[in-house]
Amino acid sequence: MVVRISESTVRRLSHYYRVLEELDAEGGKVVSSRRLAEREGVTPAQVRKDLSCFGSFGRRGLGYSVAHLRSEIRTILGLDRRWRVAVAGAGHIGSALLAYRGFAEQGFEVVAVFDRDPERIGQRIGTLIVHDIATMPEWSMREGIEIGVIATPAAAAQEVADLMVRSGLRGILNFAPRNLVAPPSVTVRNVDMTLEFESLSFALAAGDGRPVAAGSGRRHRRR
Amino acid sequence: MVVRISESTVRRLSHYYRVLEELDAEGGKVVSSRRLAEREGVTPAQVRKDLSCFGSFGRRGLGYSVAHLRSEIRTILGLDRRWRVAVAGAGHIGSALLAYRGFAEQGFEVVAVFDRDPERIGQRIGTLIVHDIATMPEWSMREGIEIGVIATPAAAAQEVADLMVRSGLRGILNFAPRNLVAPPSVTVRNVDMTLEFESLSFALAAGDGRPVAAGSGRRHRRR
Repeated sequence: MVVRISESTVRRLSHYYRVLEELDAEGGKVVSSRRLAEREGVTPAQVRKDLSCFGSFGRRGLGYSVAHLRSEIRTILGLDRRWRVAVAGAGHIGSALLAYRGFAEQGFEVVAVFDRDPERIGQRIGTLIVHDIATMPEWSMREGIEIGVIATPAAAAQEVADLMVRSGLRGILNFAPRNLVAPPSVTVRNVDMTLEFESLSFALAAGDGRPVAAGSGRRHRRR
Repeated sequence: MVVRISESTVRRLSHYYRVLEELDAEGGKVVSSRRLAEREGVTPAQVRKDLSCFGSFGRRGLGYSVAHLRSEIRTILGLDRRWRVAVAGAGHIGSALLAYRGFAEQGFEVVAVFDRDPERIGQRIGTLIVHDIATMPEWSMREGIEIGVIATPAAAAQEVADLMVRSGLRGILNFAPRNLVAPPSVTVRNVDMTLEFESLSFALAAGDGRPVAAGSGRRHRRR
Protein backbone atom coordinates (compact mmCIF):
# COMPACT_ATOMS: atom_id res chain seq x y z
CA MET A 1 0.00 0.00 0.00
CA VAL A 2 1.39 3.40 -0.99
CA VAL A 3 0.53 6.32 1.27
CA ARG A 4 1.33 10.00 1.06
CA ILE A 5 1.86 11.68 4.39
CA SER A 6 1.45 15.43 4.10
CA GLU A 7 3.34 18.07 6.03
CA SER A 8 0.00 19.02 7.54
CA THR A 9 -0.37 15.51 8.95
CA VAL A 10 3.12 15.59 10.45
CA ARG A 11 2.34 18.96 12.00
CA ARG A 12 -0.84 17.59 13.54
CA LEU A 13 1.11 14.61 14.91
CA SER A 14 3.41 17.12 16.63
CA HIS A 15 0.39 18.79 18.18
CA TYR A 16 -1.12 15.48 19.32
CA TYR A 17 2.26 14.69 20.83
CA ARG A 18 2.18 17.94 22.86
CA VAL A 19 -1.28 17.04 24.22
CA LEU A 20 -0.12 13.51 25.06
CA GLU A 21 2.94 14.87 26.89
CA GLU A 22 0.68 17.10 28.99
CA LEU A 23 -1.76 14.28 29.72
CA ASP A 24 1.07 11.92 30.62
CA ALA A 25 2.51 14.51 33.02
CA GLU A 26 -0.94 14.86 34.63
CA GLY A 27 -1.19 11.08 35.04
CA GLY A 28 -3.81 10.55 32.32
CA LYS A 29 -4.09 6.95 31.10
CA VAL A 30 -6.59 7.09 28.21
CA VAL A 31 -7.46 9.78 25.67
CA SER A 32 -10.30 10.10 23.15
CA SER A 33 -9.90 11.28 19.56
CA ARG A 34 -12.20 14.15 20.55
CA ARG A 35 -9.77 15.38 23.21
CA LEU A 36 -6.85 15.12 20.78
CA ALA A 37 -8.88 16.99 18.15
CA GLU A 38 -9.73 19.95 20.38
CA ARG A 39 -6.40 21.66 20.51
CA GLU A 40 -5.67 21.64 16.78
CA GLY A 41 -9.27 22.52 15.90
CA VAL A 42 -9.82 19.48 13.69
CA THR A 43 -12.53 16.84 13.81
CA PRO A 44 -12.19 13.60 15.82
CA ALA A 45 -12.56 11.78 12.49
CA GLN A 46 -9.43 13.60 11.22
CA VAL A 47 -7.50 12.46 14.30
CA ARG A 48 -8.52 8.84 13.74
CA LYS A 49 -7.59 9.12 10.06
CA ASP A 50 -4.18 10.66 10.87
CA LEU A 51 -3.35 7.96 13.38
CA SER A 52 -4.59 5.16 11.14
CA CYS A 53 -1.92 6.12 8.56
CA PHE A 54 0.67 4.63 10.86
CA GLY A 55 -1.17 1.58 12.12
CA SER A 56 -4.01 0.96 14.53
CA PHE A 57 -3.40 2.41 17.99
CA GLY A 58 -6.87 2.79 19.45
CA ARG A 59 -9.89 0.63 20.23
CA ARG A 60 -13.35 1.78 19.24
CA GLY A 61 -15.18 3.27 22.20
CA LEU A 62 -12.20 2.87 24.52
CA GLY A 63 -9.90 5.59 23.21
CA TYR A 64 -6.13 5.51 23.01
CA SER A 65 -3.62 4.56 25.68
CA VAL A 66 -1.75 7.81 26.46
CA ALA A 67 1.59 6.15 27.19
CA HIS A 68 1.46 3.85 24.17
CA LEU A 69 0.31 6.49 21.69
CA ARG A 70 2.86 8.97 23.02
CA SER A 71 5.61 6.43 22.57
CA GLU A 72 4.44 5.51 19.05
CA ILE A 73 4.23 9.14 17.87
CA ARG A 74 7.61 9.82 19.47
CA THR A 75 9.10 7.08 17.30
CA ILE A 76 7.21 8.17 14.17
CA LEU A 77 8.49 11.75 14.58
CA GLY A 78 12.03 10.52 15.06
CA LEU A 79 12.17 11.89 18.62
CA ASP A 80 13.24 8.58 20.16
CA ARG A 81 16.86 9.40 19.43
CA ARG A 82 19.30 12.34 19.60
CA TRP A 83 19.97 14.44 16.49
CA ARG A 84 23.25 16.31 16.32
CA VAL A 85 22.72 19.78 14.89
CA ALA A 86 25.00 22.49 13.51
CA VAL A 87 23.88 26.11 13.20
CA ALA A 88 25.30 28.26 10.39
CA GLY A 89 25.05 31.96 11.16
CA ALA A 90 25.74 33.43 14.59
CA GLY A 91 23.46 36.45 14.18
CA HIS A 92 20.12 37.11 15.84
CA ILE A 93 18.29 33.97 14.69
CA GLY A 94 21.25 31.68 15.31
CA SER A 95 21.73 33.13 18.80
CA ALA A 96 18.01 32.81 19.57
CA LEU A 97 18.11 29.14 18.54
CA LEU A 98 21.18 28.47 20.65
CA ALA A 99 19.53 30.10 23.67
CA TYR A 100 16.35 28.02 23.38
CA ARG A 101 16.46 24.97 25.63
CA GLY A 102 13.33 23.35 24.19
CA PHE A 103 15.23 21.89 21.23
CA ALA A 104 17.57 19.85 23.39
CA GLU A 105 14.61 18.53 25.39
CA GLN A 106 13.10 17.15 22.16
CA GLY A 107 16.37 15.53 21.15
CA PHE A 108 17.90 18.24 18.95
CA GLU A 109 21.33 18.96 20.31
CA VAL A 110 23.22 21.89 18.84
CA VAL A 111 26.87 20.81 18.97
CA ALA A 112 28.48 23.44 16.72
CA VAL A 113 27.91 26.96 15.44
CA PHE A 114 29.60 28.49 12.40
CA ASP A 115 29.95 31.90 10.80
CA ARG A 116 32.18 33.44 8.15
CA ASP A 117 32.53 36.84 9.81
CA PRO A 118 36.06 37.09 11.34
CA GLU A 119 34.63 39.25 14.14
CA ARG A 120 32.24 36.50 15.19
CA ILE A 121 34.63 33.55 14.78
CA GLY A 122 36.14 32.66 18.16
CA GLN A 123 33.37 34.33 20.16
CA ARG A 124 31.46 32.33 22.75
CA ILE A 125 27.67 31.85 22.53
CA GLY A 126 26.43 29.98 25.59
CA THR A 127 28.66 26.92 25.87
CA LEU A 128 29.79 26.96 22.22
CA ILE A 129 32.57 28.75 20.36
CA VAL A 130 31.78 30.16 16.91
CA HIS A 131 33.91 28.39 14.28
CA ASP A 132 34.89 29.36 10.76
CA ILE A 133 32.24 28.02 8.41
CA ALA A 134 35.00 26.73 6.12
CA THR A 135 35.73 24.10 8.78
CA MET A 136 32.17 22.73 8.72
CA PRO A 137 32.94 19.59 6.65
CA GLU A 138 35.66 18.31 9.00
CA TRP A 139 33.58 19.24 12.07
CA SER A 140 30.52 17.49 10.72
CA MET A 141 32.37 14.26 9.96
CA ARG A 142 34.11 14.22 13.34
CA GLU A 143 31.04 15.17 15.39
CA GLY A 144 28.53 13.05 13.44
CA ILE A 145 26.34 16.05 12.62
CA GLU A 146 23.20 15.18 10.67
CA ILE A 147 21.09 18.34 10.67
CA GLY A 148 22.16 21.83 9.63
CA VAL A 149 20.29 25.03 10.43
CA ILE A 150 20.72 27.95 8.04
CA ALA A 151 20.41 31.21 9.96
CA THR A 152 22.39 33.37 7.55
CA PRO A 153 21.26 36.26 5.34
CA ALA A 154 19.32 35.11 2.25
CA ALA A 155 22.20 35.91 -0.09
CA ALA A 156 24.50 33.38 1.63
CA ALA A 157 21.92 30.62 2.12
CA GLN A 158 22.49 28.57 -1.05
CA GLU A 159 26.26 28.60 -0.63
CA VAL A 160 25.86 27.40 2.96
CA ALA A 161 23.38 24.72 1.85
CA ASP A 162 25.91 23.46 -0.73
CA LEU A 163 28.54 23.31 2.01
CA MET A 164 26.14 21.36 4.25
CA VAL A 165 25.51 18.87 1.45
CA ARG A 166 29.28 18.45 0.96
CA SER A 167 29.59 18.01 4.74
CA GLY A 168 27.37 14.92 4.55
CA LEU A 169 24.39 16.44 6.40
CA ARG A 170 21.07 14.69 5.79
CA GLY A 171 18.64 17.46 6.73
CA ILE A 172 18.56 21.25 6.47
CA LEU A 173 16.29 23.61 8.35
CA ASN A 174 16.31 26.89 6.46
CA PHE A 175 15.39 30.17 8.19
CA ALA A 176 16.61 32.31 5.28
CA PRO A 177 13.74 33.64 3.16
CA ARG A 178 14.69 31.95 -0.11
CA ASN A 179 14.18 28.56 -1.69
CA LEU A 180 17.19 26.24 -1.71
CA VAL A 181 18.35 23.69 -4.23
CA ALA A 182 19.55 20.41 -2.72
CA PRO A 183 19.93 16.83 -3.96
CA PRO A 184 17.01 14.43 -3.20
CA SER A 185 19.11 12.66 -0.56
CA VAL A 186 19.02 15.81 1.60
CA THR A 187 15.70 16.86 3.16
CA VAL A 188 15.07 20.60 3.34
CA ARG A 189 12.43 22.31 5.48
CA ASN A 190 11.85 26.03 5.20
CA VAL A 191 10.78 28.01 8.25
CA ASP A 192 8.53 30.83 7.14
CA MET A 193 7.59 32.94 10.12
CA THR A 194 5.20 34.94 7.97
CA LEU A 195 2.87 31.91 8.13
CA GLU A 196 2.24 32.53 11.81
CA PHE A 197 1.42 36.16 11.15
CA GLU A 198 -1.01 35.04 8.45
CA SER A 199 -2.76 32.62 10.78
CA LEU A 200 -3.27 35.55 13.16
CA SER A 201 -4.44 38.01 10.50
CA PHE A 202 -6.84 35.36 9.19
CA ALA A 203 -8.43 35.09 12.62
CA LEU A 204 -8.52 38.87 13.13
CA ALA A 205 -9.96 39.53 9.67
CA ALA A 206 -12.49 36.78 10.37
CA GLY A 207 -13.47 38.60 13.55
CA ASP A 208 -14.46 41.44 11.24
CA GLY A 209 -17.15 39.21 9.78
CA ARG A 210 -15.36 36.43 7.87
CA PRO A 211 -15.12 32.73 8.83
CA VAL A 212 -12.97 32.22 11.90
CA ALA A 213 -10.26 29.66 12.59
CA ALA A 214 -11.40 26.87 14.86
CA GLY A 215 -8.14 26.69 16.81
CA SER A 216 -9.94 27.96 19.90
CA GLY A 217 -12.60 25.29 19.58
CA ARG A 218 -15.31 27.86 18.92
CA ARG A 219 -17.84 27.48 16.15
CA HIS A 220 -18.66 30.22 13.74
CA ARG A 221 -21.36 30.87 11.29
CA ARG A 222 -20.46 31.26 7.68
CA ARG A 223 -21.79 34.25 5.85
CA MET B 1 -24.14 26.59 7.44
CA VAL B 2 -21.62 26.25 10.24
CA VAL B 3 -18.04 25.42 9.23
CA ARG B 4 -14.92 24.82 11.24
CA ILE B 5 -11.75 26.01 9.62
CA SER B 6 -8.72 24.37 11.15
CA GLU B 7 -5.30 25.89 11.63
CA SER B 8 -4.05 23.28 9.19
CA THR B 9 -6.41 24.63 6.52
CA VAL B 10 -5.27 28.21 7.11
CA ARG B 11 -1.66 27.05 6.85
CA ARG B 12 -2.38 25.33 3.55
CA LEU B 13 -4.09 28.49 2.26
CA SER B 14 -0.86 30.36 3.05
CA HIS B 15 1.08 27.80 1.02
CA TYR B 16 -1.34 27.98 -1.92
CA TYR B 17 -0.96 31.75 -1.74
CA ARG B 18 2.85 31.44 -2.07
CA VAL B 19 2.43 29.24 -5.17
CA LEU B 20 -0.08 31.69 -6.66
CA GLU B 21 2.29 34.62 -6.05
CA GLU B 22 5.06 32.75 -7.88
CA LEU B 23 2.76 31.81 -10.77
CA ASP B 24 1.45 35.36 -11.02
CA ALA B 25 5.01 36.71 -11.15
CA GLU B 26 5.79 34.23 -13.95
CA GLY B 27 2.72 35.38 -15.89
CA GLY B 28 0.65 32.21 -15.27
CA LYS B 29 -3.07 32.65 -15.87
CA VAL B 30 -4.63 29.34 -14.83
CA VAL B 31 -3.66 26.74 -12.22
CA SER B 32 -4.91 23.22 -11.53
CA SER B 33 -5.65 21.80 -8.09
CA ARG B 34 -2.89 19.27 -8.85
CA ARG B 35 -0.28 22.03 -9.22
CA LEU B 36 -1.45 23.69 -6.00
CA ALA B 37 -1.33 20.33 -4.22
CA GLU B 38 2.24 19.51 -5.21
CA ARG B 39 4.10 21.92 -2.99
CA GLU B 40 2.27 21.14 0.24
CA GLY B 41 2.26 17.40 -0.50
CA VAL B 42 -1.51 17.02 -0.23
CA THR B 43 -3.97 15.54 -2.71
CA PRO B 44 -5.73 17.64 -5.38
CA ALA B 45 -9.00 16.61 -3.68
CA GLN B 46 -7.77 18.26 -0.46
CA VAL B 47 -7.03 21.48 -2.35
CA ARG B 48 -10.53 21.52 -3.85
CA LYS B 49 -12.03 20.83 -0.42
CA ASP B 50 -9.98 23.61 1.23
CA LEU B 51 -10.98 26.16 -1.37
CA SER B 52 -14.63 25.09 -1.35
CA CYS B 53 -14.85 26.13 2.33
CA PHE B 54 -14.75 29.73 1.20
CA GLY B 55 -16.92 29.56 -1.90
CA SER B 56 -16.45 28.20 -5.38
CA PHE B 57 -13.45 29.64 -7.19
CA GLY B 58 -12.71 27.07 -9.89
CA ARG B 59 -14.46 25.43 -12.81
CA ARG B 60 -14.30 21.69 -13.29
CA GLY B 61 -11.71 20.76 -15.91
CA LEU B 62 -10.61 24.36 -16.41
CA GLY B 63 -8.74 25.00 -13.16
CA TYR B 64 -8.56 28.23 -11.19
CA SER B 65 -7.80 31.74 -12.40
CA VAL B 66 -4.44 32.62 -10.79
CA ALA B 67 -5.19 36.34 -10.39
CA HIS B 68 -8.70 35.79 -9.03
CA LEU B 69 -7.76 33.00 -6.61
CA ARG B 70 -4.71 34.93 -5.39
CA SER B 71 -6.87 37.96 -4.70
CA GLU B 72 -9.52 35.87 -2.91
CA ILE B 73 -7.02 34.09 -0.66
CA ARG B 74 -5.31 37.40 0.03
CA THR B 75 -8.62 38.73 1.36
CA ILE B 76 -9.41 35.55 3.29
CA LEU B 77 -6.00 35.67 5.02
CA GLY B 78 -6.49 39.33 5.91
CA LEU B 79 -3.54 40.39 3.75
CA ASP B 80 -5.51 42.97 1.78
CA ARG B 81 -4.81 45.56 4.47
CA ARG B 82 -1.96 46.80 6.69
CA TRP B 83 -1.62 45.50 10.24
CA ARG B 84 0.22 47.69 12.72
CA VAL B 85 2.45 45.57 14.93
CA ALA B 86 4.34 46.15 18.19
CA VAL B 87 7.21 43.90 19.29
CA ALA B 88 7.80 43.37 23.02
CA GLY B 89 11.35 42.26 23.74
CA ALA B 90 14.38 43.73 21.97
CA GLY B 91 16.56 40.62 22.35
CA HIS B 92 17.61 38.15 19.66
CA ILE B 93 14.14 37.13 18.44
CA GLY B 94 12.77 40.67 18.53
CA SER B 95 15.80 41.96 16.61
CA ALA B 96 15.54 39.14 14.07
CA LEU B 97 11.87 40.01 13.47
CA LEU B 98 12.65 43.69 13.07
CA ALA B 99 15.39 42.91 10.55
CA TYR B 100 13.15 40.71 8.40
CA ARG B 101 11.64 42.65 5.50
CA GLY B 102 9.22 39.91 4.47
CA PHE B 103 6.68 40.87 7.13
CA ALA B 104 6.22 44.39 5.80
CA GLU B 105 5.77 43.00 2.27
CA GLN B 106 2.84 40.89 3.49
CA GLY B 107 1.26 43.85 5.26
CA PHE B 108 2.67 43.45 8.79
CA GLU B 109 4.30 46.73 9.69
CA VAL B 110 6.29 46.85 12.93
CA VAL B 111 5.78 50.39 14.19
CA ALA B 112 7.07 50.10 17.76
CA VAL B 113 9.44 47.99 19.85
CA PHE B 114 9.42 47.79 23.63
CA ASP B 115 11.61 46.40 26.39
CA ARG B 116 11.85 46.81 30.14
CA ASP B 117 15.64 46.67 30.36
CA PRO B 118 16.95 50.24 31.00
CA GLU B 119 20.06 49.38 28.97
CA ARG B 120 17.97 48.60 25.89
CA ILE B 121 15.46 51.46 26.22
CA GLY B 122 16.49 54.35 23.98
CA GLN B 123 18.66 52.19 21.73
CA ARG B 124 18.03 52.16 18.00
CA ILE B 125 17.14 48.95 16.12
CA GLY B 126 16.92 49.66 12.41
CA THR B 127 14.63 52.67 12.08
CA LEU B 128 12.97 52.23 15.49
CA ILE B 129 13.89 53.35 19.00
CA VAL B 130 13.30 50.88 21.86
CA HIS B 131 10.69 52.29 24.25
CA ASP B 132 9.88 51.47 27.86
CA ILE B 133 7.29 48.70 27.87
CA ALA B 134 5.32 50.62 30.50
CA THR B 135 4.44 53.11 27.77
CA MET B 136 2.88 50.45 25.52
CA PRO B 137 -0.78 51.33 26.29
CA GLU B 138 -0.46 54.98 25.28
CA TRP B 139 1.65 54.07 22.23
CA SER B 140 -0.83 51.47 21.11
CA MET B 141 -3.80 53.80 21.33
CA ARG B 142 -2.00 56.62 19.55
CA GLU B 143 -0.48 54.44 16.82
CA GLY B 144 -3.51 52.20 16.28
CA ILE B 145 -1.52 49.04 17.01
CA GLU B 146 -3.57 45.83 16.66
CA ILE B 147 -1.02 42.99 16.85
CA GLY B 148 1.56 42.40 19.55
CA VAL B 149 4.54 40.07 19.26
CA ILE B 150 5.92 38.60 22.47
CA ALA B 151 9.65 38.03 22.09
CA THR B 152 10.51 38.11 25.78
CA PRO B 153 11.82 35.37 28.09
CA ALA B 154 9.12 32.87 29.10
CA ALA B 155 8.94 34.23 32.65
CA ALA B 156 7.83 37.67 31.45
CA ALA B 157 5.43 36.50 28.73
CA GLN B 158 2.14 36.43 30.67
CA GLU B 159 2.75 39.85 32.21
CA VAL B 160 3.45 41.28 28.74
CA ALA B 161 0.34 39.55 27.35
CA ASP B 162 -1.78 41.15 30.10
CA LEU B 163 -0.30 44.53 29.19
CA MET B 164 -1.10 43.94 25.51
CA VAL B 165 -4.70 43.12 26.42
CA ARG B 166 -4.93 46.31 28.47
CA SER B 167 -3.42 48.18 25.51
CA GLY B 168 -6.39 47.17 23.37
CA LEU B 169 -4.47 44.82 21.06
CA ARG B 170 -6.60 42.24 19.22
CA GLY B 171 -3.99 39.63 18.38
CA ILE B 172 -0.84 38.24 20.03
CA LEU B 173 1.91 36.25 18.36
CA ASN B 174 3.79 34.48 21.13
CA PHE B 175 7.38 33.31 20.61
CA ALA B 176 7.92 32.56 24.31
CA PRO B 177 7.74 28.83 25.07
CA ARG B 178 4.76 28.91 27.42
CA ASN B 179 0.98 28.98 27.10
CA LEU B 180 -0.71 32.31 27.68
CA VAL B 181 -4.05 33.17 29.22
CA ALA B 182 -6.02 35.85 27.36
CA PRO B 183 -9.69 36.83 27.08
CA PRO B 184 -11.66 35.37 24.12
CA SER B 185 -11.68 38.77 22.40
CA VAL B 186 -7.90 38.50 21.90
CA THR B 187 -6.56 35.90 19.47
CA VAL B 188 -3.30 34.22 20.49
CA ARG B 189 -1.03 32.22 18.19
CA ASN B 190 1.98 30.41 19.58
CA VAL B 191 5.09 30.02 17.46
CA ASP B 192 6.72 26.71 18.29
CA MET B 193 9.93 26.36 16.33
CA THR B 194 10.36 22.81 17.58
CA LEU B 195 7.59 21.85 15.13
CA GLU B 196 9.88 22.54 12.19
CA PHE B 197 12.61 20.40 13.70
CA GLU B 198 10.10 17.61 14.17
CA SER B 199 8.97 17.78 10.55
CA LEU B 200 12.62 17.34 9.58
CA SER B 201 13.33 14.51 12.01
CA PHE B 202 10.16 12.77 10.82
CA ALA B 203 11.47 12.83 7.25
CA LEU B 204 14.97 11.74 8.27
CA ALA B 205 13.70 8.93 10.49
CA ALA B 206 11.42 7.90 7.63
CA GLY B 207 14.46 7.74 5.38
CA ASP B 208 15.71 5.05 7.75
CA GLY B 209 12.78 2.88 6.65
CA ARG B 210 9.61 4.51 7.95
CA PRO B 211 6.91 6.32 5.91
CA VAL B 212 8.19 9.56 4.42
CA ALA B 213 6.59 12.99 4.25
CA ALA B 214 5.28 13.78 0.81
CA GLY B 215 6.40 17.41 0.83
CA SER B 216 8.81 16.67 -1.98
CA GLY B 217 6.07 15.10 -4.08
CA ARG B 218 7.70 11.67 -3.87
CA ARG B 219 5.75 8.53 -3.14
CA HIS B 220 6.85 6.01 -0.60
CA ARG B 221 5.94 2.49 0.19
CA ARG B 222 4.57 1.73 3.58
CA ARG B 223 6.14 -1.10 5.51
